[in-house]
Amino acid sequence: MQRFDIAVIGTGPAGLSAAITATIRNKTVMLLGSKDLSEKLSKAHEIQNYLGFPAIPGEKLAEAFQKHLDQMGIEITEKRINAVYAMGEYFALQAGEEMLEASSVILATGVVQGKPLPGEEELLGRGVSYCATCDAPLYRGKSTAVIGYSPREESEAAFLSEVCSEVLYFPVYKEETDLPACVRVIREKVTGIENADGRRLVRTEANAYPTDGVFVLREAVAPGQLVPGLETEGSHVSVNRRMEASIPGVFACGDIAGTPYQYIKSAGEGNVAALSAVAWLDQKKRSK
Amino acid sequence: MQRFDIAVIGTGPAGLSAAITATIRNKTVMLLGSKDLSEKLSKAHEIQNYLGFPAIPGEKLAEAFQKHLDQMGIEITEKRINAVYAMGEYFALQAGEEMLEASSVILATGVVQGKPLPGEEELLGRGVSYCATCDAPLYRGKSTAVIGYSPREESEAAFLSEVCSEVLYFPVYKEETDLPACVRVIREKVTGIENADGRRLVRTEANAYPTDGVFVLREAVAPGQLVPGLETEGSHVSVNRRMEASIPGVFACGDIAGTPYQYIKSAGEGNVAALSAVAWLDQKKRSK
Repeated sequence: MQRFDIAVIGTGPAGLSAAITATIRNKTVMLLGSKDLSEKLSKAHEIQNYLGFPAIPGEKLAEAFQKHLDQMGIEITEKRINAVYAMGEYFALQAGEEMLEASSVILATGVVQGKPLPGEEELLGRGVSYCATCDAPLYRGKSTAVIGYSPREESEAAFLSEVCSEVLYFPVYKEETDLPACVRVIREKVTGIENADGRRLVRTEANAYPTDGVFVLREAVAPGQLVPGLETEGSHVSVNRRMEASIPGVFACGDIAGTPYQYIKSAGEGNVAALSAVAWLDQKKRSK
Repeated sequence: MQRFDIAVIGTGPAGLSAAITATIRNKTVMLLGSKDLSEKLSKAHEIQNYLGFPAIPGEKLAEAFQKHLDQMGIEITEKRINAVYAMGEYFALQAGEEMLEASSVILATGVVQGKPLPGEEELLGRGVSYCATCDAPLYRGKSTAVIGYSPREESEAAFLSEVCSEVLYFPVYKEETDLPACVRVIREKVTGIENADGRRLVRTEANAYPTDGVFVLREAVAPGQLVPGLETEGSHVSVNRRMEASIPGVFACGDIAGTPYQYIKSAGEGNVAALSAVAWLDQKKRSK
């Protein structure tokens, strides 16, 4: 298996900027995330303060970013990383059932919108999961519920419907769903998850739905869950001005590294994170 | 006199980005610096990693920045700030003989290249000056020397030649000089400044030139000299991740705030400095 010098997780402005600078510095880079880049960016009506692009629609700015990637031959690997484990000499990145390897990691996954649901964190790993691809086999022939925070999660629900006897889908967004007929879409506000009689209960404002497993699928995973043992401040990774996180070899940039949530700030931090990762890799090499 | 909400000192990527974001946030902004923007930027052969502009010549990127300013109606006030004084309720900015006022200050002057000359700091204010406009009257009818670090300083030397009996000009750059005939251009490497028999002595590798006053003119003034009392680390202003400096109401961004010296990092930090200044101004207003 190829071990990359740097894994960049996230394809918003921070991740793209990090990947570009790391590539210029001749490191092997694996850029992981959505090929559509940041949804927040491409849906932005107009951005006023990304220096050099006056009053630009988010979609156009995303195009300029894509062109930059293309011109440098940087490709996006469209895999969702569920967890990053520090293995001593390298980092193991869990992408569904697959494991990827990198010598250093730059976290640029954006920030989790909103708080976890009541019961979500308590039941994580005990009937609540963030990864349908990883945990679907546990629920073969059983009932599952998916709480999906964006239309992108629908493919996970569709996959579950091939394995499970029943899939309930709770969309936490306004867009129309596009799901197999066997998936039952429930447009009710989820208020929490509970354990009841050996099964799980998804509570909504109106009802309670018993099921075997609950998948909570968001764009971004909370940083402490993504990298076990990482120091965080609320929903942000703790970093210093060099964008170094608490685990050596882990860097963070963009929204996940703190406010303000601004495109140009994210791009700037991605650059700094990449140069710090390069310096760290070079230092490690010299000290061998 | 108009007291601006925010004075932004410096017209490189950090200063421009700060001015743009502060303007969007409805603050009155005085953007001070060269209308040619950053010389370092416009002379850059090609910039690879300013996200959104693949492989762009520095000159073209500067054009894109200028267009952004134009489209937002932001004008540059071409004044060199020699010192910033914290007056309690506001800041006084010394521009030659003129005083300007602002409620908060964002420092984006770039970093001083190289170390001070031997003797420079010791004799500052005692025969050595950083401001020809301010101190020329002291040398009426006397001899002065100018150590100029860029062709932009030549206008200061020309001005001195109207007042002083003799002006020696030591260019610390390769370009041809364009000076009045009465200014004596000496292309020798300056090694230090000394006191001798009540006069000053400019030492070069080859000779020693006695004179009355020595003007050391660089693009950027060291931050501790620019803002008396400001906490610095070497040639950088000490800042936290919000770009707050040690004096409340003073912020710094770009090269002056530390390495890496990168355009996109500077632009990102300018954005953060502006938003921190806005928050600080709003907080101050509320607590009244």
